[in-house]
Amino acid sequence: MPQLRIALAQINSTVGDIAGNTRLHLDWARQALGARAHVVVFPEMSLTGYPVEDLSLRSTFAQASRQAVDDLAGRLVEAGCGDLLVYVGYLDLDEAGPRDAAAALYRGEVVARQFKHHLPNYGVFDEHRWFKAGQTLDVVRLHGLDIGMVICEDIWQDGGPVTALGEAGVDLVVAPNASPYERSKDDIRLPLVARRAAEAGAPLVYANLVGGQDDLVFDGDSIVVGANGDLLGRAPQFVEHLLVVDLDLPAGGHSAEGEFAGLKVRRRVLGTEPAAPYEPLAEVPISEPLSDEAEVWSALVVGLRDYVRKNGFRSVLFGFSGGIDSAVTAALAVDALGPDAVYGVSMPSKYSSAHSREDAAELARRLGCHFRTEPVEDMVEVYVNQLNLAGTGLAEENIQARVRGMLLMALSNLEGHLVLATGNKTELAVGYSTIYGDAVGGFAPIKDVFKRHVWELARWRNAEAEKRGETPPIPENSITKPPSAELRPGQLDTDSLPDYALLDDILDDYIEGDRGYGDLLAAGFEPETIDRVLRMVDRAEYKRRQYPIGTKITFKAFGRDRRLPITNGWREGDQR
Amino acid sequence: MPQLRIALAQINSTVGDIAGNTRLHLDWARQALGARAHVVVFPEMSLTGYPVEDLSLRSTFAQASRQAVDDLAGRLVEAGCGDLLVYVGYLDLDEAGPRDAAAALYRGEVVARQFKHHLPNYGVFDEHRWFKAGQTLDVVRLHGLDIGMVICEDIWQDGGPVTALGEAGVDLVVAPNASPYERSKDDIRLPLVARRAAEAGAPLVYANLVGGQDDLVFDGDSIVVGANGDLLGRAPQFVEHLLVVDLDLPAGGHSAEGEFAGLKVRRRVLGTEPAAPYEPLAEVPISEPLSDEAEVWSALVVGLRDYVRKNGFRSVLFGFSGGIDSAVTAALAVDALGPDAVYGVSMPSKYSSAHSREDAAELARRLGCHFRTEPVEDMVEVYVNQLNLAGTGLAEENIQARVRGMLLMALSNLEGHLVLATGNKTELAVGYSTIYGDAVGGFAPIKDVFKRHVWELARWRNAEAEKRGETPPIPENSITKPPSAELRPGQLDTDSLPDYALLDDILDDYIEGDRGYGDLLAAGFEPETIDRVLRMVDRAEYKRRQYPIGTKITFKAFGRDRRLPITNGWREGDQR
Repeated sequence: MPQLRIALAQINSTVGDIAGNTRLHLDWARQALGARAHVVVFPEMSLTGYPVEDLSLRSTFAQASRQAVDDLAGRLVEAGCGDLLVYVGYLDLDEAGPRDAAAALYRGEVVARQFKHHLPNYGVFDEHRWFKAGQTLDVVRLHGLDIGMVICEDIWQDGGPVTALGEAGVDLVVAPNASPYERSKDDIRLPLVARRAAEAGAPLVYANLVGGQDDLVFDGDSIVVGANGDLLGRAPQFVEHLLVVDLDLPAGGHSAEGEFAGLKVRRRVLGTEPAAPYEPLAEVPISEPLSDEAEVWSALVVGLRDYVRKNGFRSVLFGFSGGIDSAVTAALAVDALGPDAVYGVSMPSKYSSAHSREDAAELARRLGCHFRTEPVEDMVEVYVNQLNLAGTGLAEENIQARVRGMLLMALSNLEGHLVLATGNKTELAVGYSTIYGDAVGGFAPIKDVFKRHVWELARWRNAEAEKRGETPPIPENSITKPPSAELRPGQLDTDSLPDYALLDDILDDYIEGDRGYGDLLAAGFEPETIDRVLRMVDRAEYKRRQYPIGTKITFKAFGRDRRLPITNGWREGDQR
Repeated sequence: MPQLRIALAQINSTVGDIAGNTRLHLDWARQALGARAHVVVFPEMSLTGYPVEDLSLRSTFAQASRQAVDDLAGRLVEAGCGDLLVYVGYLDLDEAGPRDAAAALYRGEVVARQFKHHLPNYGVFDEHRWFKAGQTLDVVRLHGLDIGMVICEDIWQDGGPVTALGEAGVDLVVAPNASPYERSKDDIRLPLVARRAAEAGAPLVYANLVGGQDDLVFDGDSIVVGANGDLLGRAPQFVEHLLVVDLDLPAGGHSAEGEFAGLKVRRRVLGTEPAAPYEPLAEVPISEPLSDEAEVWSALVVGLRDYVRKNGFRSVLFGFSGGIDSAVTAALAVDALGPDAVYGVSMPSKYSSAHSREDAAELARRLGCHFRTEPVEDMVEVYVNQLNLAGTGLAEENIQARVRGMLLMALSNLEGHLVLATGNKTELAVGYSTIYGDAVGGFAPIKDVFKRHVWELARWRNAEAEKRGETPPIPENSITKPPSAELRPGQLDTDSLPDYALLDDILDDYIEGDRGYGDLLAAGFEPETIDRVLRMVDRAEYKRRQYPIGTKITFKAFGRDRRLPITNGWREGDQR
């Protein structure tokens, strides 16, 4: 017979928007109360958003965050949620420095306050820079049940805070998280959470953030796992959701305090009376995880939508070339923002083929988005004539790409749309793009998608449309024709690059797999091809630095989490 | 009577160029031998360069670095330097992870190998990401003298490795460093090193890197300080230099091993015979530090020169507008690379004043650099006509700046020069620049110099020229006229911005001083002005992300060491 109902508020906070996030907390706490929950758990740093990066170092921001926690405690009471135990994540600051903190609010008071113990400092995480680690564990007793708390990375550590809670004794562990989505990570959360629940000897409640924030996207996927490893609840991915779960907890009457596994356990009693008996939920709420392609597509849609929205834009503008990259970007943008918020521009030059113009127009027809044509021949001609660029190769090719970038920026200045860059990860890796040309934009939705994967996503999205009886958004011709930048007559990508299947294989090994020259050779690639690809990658670092950010779907995306020096005399390709 | 001669090789390594850095080590070891030194100390990570950033995470790079140390030991013997004790910095890798390491080489062998203990993780440093900390201290006995070693940040820690060496007993401490230049840092190195020498009860040898690496510049300023705090030698700033110092060391015959201050001390005897008596140096070699303006100017010159050189360029190209920013950039570029490597382009539009064109031409005449005029009216006109930009304000203004950026990039593609962006820190802070326009370039030399300081540097540089009987490089008119972007008739910077003196005061407090709204109010600024400036700074984060890198002269420069989220609902200006 369950005697505690817990709600996990899988919300989409915005970094820095403390006032907006506070309203979000009040709304979702009211919903939890409406669902007759006794406890509601918000994600890690839910009041400030995550990652706050160097905002953590501004003491005025930390003070605003601390003040917001105190204010929220009072406003929850005003909203009738005083008897609800509310776990909220925020930024704290004390004499040691900034803290990744969570507080428990009850009857207008902060009844527990704890700092993250294990600070990840790899990939997208720089937490040794942003925070100081905590040393205490605050356990509260509600309705006679002892509830402990750990924050995010704390559950990834053997012999860490969960071990300490297990030794000290608790009936339930809540874990606020801000765990970014990562592709091709097998589902390691569930077995990990199950292992920690066993270690704690109590169910573990894993509440994760959802939504896009800069180049990260959080997938939610909040879960509750029993001490025996049973999955007791799972929220859907990529949407805000209140997951409500009934728990049948044996009140252990734990009372041990003091040091466990190097951490100081403190206890506080809020109430010893069992909760009034109530009608349990009819079902265990377990959502099915998405398929791999659906998961990636959702991540890209949510990442784009939230970047646009959180930065105060309402619409996006970019070039429709007739090629696969702009077609997939357009389909993502329409899924994210609706057709009326998407503005396509065809910018033909004298080298643009008839089929490109037709494919671009067909894409716009299928999507129902805005579309216009702005030829660039006159603009290109002035440069070519004044600077004598005819026949100069690179200089003449780049001018076409740059004229287009400027044209998009002028339309953005006139009409207020966010410009999107449509480049993919393969191009970015090997530097096959024109800086200030096709690299122009405030956001690059498919920046972390290899070319081969762009095609796969296009086919998958079209097939989904067909399943639903809708028009497939992407013209078949854009998927099947050989890719070309069309910057000179008859140009094909394969003039400058190895075949994409081969190229993506090498890049996957070199970038995602961190494999060196010797490994690639052992894998059977031709020495000349390895050499050629690795040199292209090593030399393109400068371009990548100036490329706009885009949603990460792997942790080996280019950007903050892959920092190589711009000047780099050493080349992996020299190490054979 | 001295019995040990020590050389500090203040060299300019290049990140990643292990082969080139190895040659540098052999050259300077030979010089040290020629100066009859017994020991030569190279800076931190001298073989790999510093900072290697995420290259530390590539195991093939770490293996190449380890191999280079072994090879160097052998090549030193071949070069006749076998009896010289050579301290060299490099990247190591063991089962725990990558290490910021230093090795002592002697007679073809690695006789000591130690990892940095304290890993800084603030400002420009992310060492918790790049390295694992060491736990051992290797002391070697040469000519009966016990020599211990600590690496860079290790000397900034109370109760750290220096304390351990002091407790265990040594006669000398060598400290390889990669300590970047920072303006307005009082000279804290000397008193710190003196304090640590006292703690060690032995002289401390502080060998620092010199030269520009990406956006950092190392000033050298290597020093030797006696146990009593006496300055025994100081190298000049911003140049490669071999500092040779004679030391009179009492052989203490220390032998304690085991754990001290939590670190494990190991000892190895290379030789117990005192060095043969020799003729001591006639003088104590102590260079005078530079004045503040000379120091900043040197940092900017060296940072620019090394960025150009280390990236394989030979010349630079940028717009000569007639204004102060491009004039100071041009003077820096000529000091860094010589007049023949500097290409100025005047790009007048219909709003450009006659005096601007004249001032630009006069600048080129004074510097003796290349100069050409490319009017942009025709290019601008095509955009304005096709897109109906006339009278649209921002869109029309930006097109002019962007046409210029594209023109510079086309010339760069044709002739191979590196394009420089000439913007200053004030513009960058408040977002007073056009992305893909005047922000175009691979390097921004005065990116970290506030506008007021740009004028000061111009006056200082002109005065220096006059002292030497040379033509002042910067036209007086460029210094005295009111600044204008000249993107519309009669435009002045003060139309959009507060007066620069006031603006720079607020920016200095907000950015360098990390002061909040309340502090600025207390400092006497008008609430409306604070509000206006802080909002401009908070909103310009996106532009700053896409701005090229430039030499840092403060640790509050924009770039890697100041990471704010792009989306930031919270505003300091809202906190009043």
